[in-house]
Amino acid sequence: MTDAPSKDQAGVSPALPSWNEGPAKAGLLEYVARVTEPGSPDFIPPSERIAVFDNDGTLWPENPIPFQAAFIMDRLKEGLGDHPEWAEDPAVQSALKLDVRALVDDGHRGLLRIVSLTHAGMTTDAFTERVNHWMHTARHPRYERPYDACIYQPMLELLRYLRAQDFKTFIVSGGGADFMRVWSERVYGIPPEQVVGSHGQVTFEVRDGEAVLHKSTDGIFVDDKEGKPVGIHQFIGRRPVLAFGNSDGDKAMLEYTTLGNPRPSLGLILHHTDGEREYAYDAEPRSTGKLVEALADAPERGWVVVDMARDWSTVLLNEPFPAESPSSP
Amino acid sequence: MTDAPSKDQAGVSPALPSWNEGPAKAGLLEYVARVTEPGSPDFIPPSERIAVFDNDGTLWPENPIPFQAAFIMDRLKEGLGDHPEWAEDPAVQSALKLDVRALVDDGHRGLLRIVSLTHAGMTTDAFTERVNHWMHTARHPRYERPYDACIYQPMLELLRYLRAQDFKTFIVSGGGADFMRVWSERVYGIPPEQVVGSHGQVTFEVRDGEAVLHKSTDGIFVDDKEGKPVGIHQFIGRRPVLAFGNSDGDKAMLEYTTLGNPRPSLGLILHHTDGEREYAYDAEPRSTGKLVEALADAPERGWVVVDMARDWSTVLLNEPFPAESPSSP
Repeated sequence: MTDAPSKDQAGVSPALPSWNEGPAKAGLLEYVARVTEPGSPDFIPPSERIAVFDNDGTLWPENPIPFQAAFIMDRLKEGLGDHPEWAEDPAVQSALKLDVRALVDDGHRGLLRIVSLTHAGMTTDAFTERVNHWMHTARHPRYERPYDACIYQPMLELLRYLRAQDFKTFIVSGGGADFMRVWSERVYGIPPEQVVGSHGQVTFEVRDGEAVLHKSTDGIFVDDKEGKPVGIHQFIGRRPVLAFGNSDGDKAMLEYTTLGNPRPSLGLILHHTDGEREYAYDAEPRSTGKLVEALADAPERGWVVVDMARDWSTVLLNEPFPAESPSSP
Repeated sequence: MTDAPSKDQAGVSPALPSWNEGPAKAGLLEYVARVTEPGSPDFIPPSERIAVFDNDGTLWPENPIPFQAAFIMDRLKEGLGDHPEWAEDPAVQSALKLDVRALVDDGHRGLLRIVSLTHAGMTTDAFTERVNHWMHTARHPRYERPYDACIYQPMLELLRYLRAQDFKTFIVSGGGADFMRVWSERVYGIPPEQVVGSHGQVTFEVRDGEAVLHKSTDGIFVDDKEGKPVGIHQFIGRRPVLAFGNSDGDKAMLEYTTLGNPRPSLGLILHHTDGEREYAYDAEPRSTGKLVEALADAPERGWVVVDMARDWSTVLLNEPFPAESPSSP
């Protein structure tokens, strides 16, 4: 064990203060030290230090329902006032019962129906405003704080640590790209152009001398499972060297990062073991984030399993809430 | 006119040495100075300084045929040896006659057919190797140098100048993303993740313990005309403040950048007026890059028209050829 990687850029504070000493933290620091040490046979040039992170269940919780589902539910309830006929729709009925599984089965058909009802046709700018408004007003039912203040403190520290070591950090999530890009830079320091997510086509129009884009649910790309390496190739255009996920939806991304990669690589899985501070789940059938196959493959693949209860001294954000975008005028 | 913007970071060498003094250079420098001056009412925070560049005809020539078409032609001729039946295909016949217009008409149907014949099913890694091999061996018929040594010196200087002013430079091109990403970082300093281009779906597979992606021509996205703002939204996720193109295929991108943008913005068009040093064309019917509507709109929109013959003292790269990738081990 070396001292070097436990110091941050200034050479004073220990890196990853909210990570307990143990095999997960040691594995992370050892890998980063090995690939960033000039002259090391495992050295990776900075431009190839691509690190990809799942979002729901990896950078913030995905319970009691994924946060974007909560956003859509709130939009749906607002819309029902003007559109009582929506109540007849089976997808709307599943949504109102919080039956997320029914919404995502059959290729996310139910979820797409809800998204179509609540968002299709609106401009991307209007959508951004709605997301911003919701983030400022909605509260997580258990933690009683804004959803974007529920991010994991240890992961925020890891993102910053990697960036200080010249890694470029990306989100690769099944969540909507348009939804995440509104707050990803302010909250995680990850700019919109480093967010890969599910998305529908938009259409371009010049209207009254202004260029606008309208959202649609045509040509939906679902950035989950095998869609993750596909999205990584399409959006990033090179193979990551570090991938961090928490569910079987991240298995293909972990494989793409670590199997046959000519560069030294690291795969990590966050295991939700902490029912006291967060939510304990993996194979539980009603959970949206299922972790069975990837966990079984981890030992053979050499993927590091991060045990939330054991490895994290803090779970949620414990520093001042990032209320203002660094890029706001 | 102020002195400040004509100095580079070191404060010594003049910026944009291959640009002649005149309205185009002055307009560029004035805009950059105005939006980067702290305290200026037009100040744009660094994270929002997104600059997008067309590639064919903007960063390098697109004559006598677009360079990627030359690559595909070379692949086609190689393939014909093993597949004499290809010669019966109307798309192949158009290609062998260099009838680029016939290939791109009808939604690029002929071109896609050729791409499908020559590349579908191969792995992305094998494709990268082919592109690298071609770049090292093929020569431009007129300039008698590698295609990637035919890039425009003044544009290379502009890319560097903008990056020194904390702009993030992106390619937004109708060319293939997989084709451009092989050399964009080495040649332009633009990394793969900042290249938006046309692309087909890839498929993911773990084969013999290695993760691979296969190319296909399914679900093609054509990053041209209205596809450019759509691609910008999908890949970059925010509106650029500077756009540089050279044809009507860039008109929608210029509109998206400049019409109704809450930030001060700049649109630029390269006008190919220099038949001696390069190629003179705009409305010529056989040209792949047609510049009619965007040129007509330029005065009203305030887009800066760069006249190659008047505004550039040098055209092609006049510094050591970027043979080695900065990220090569």
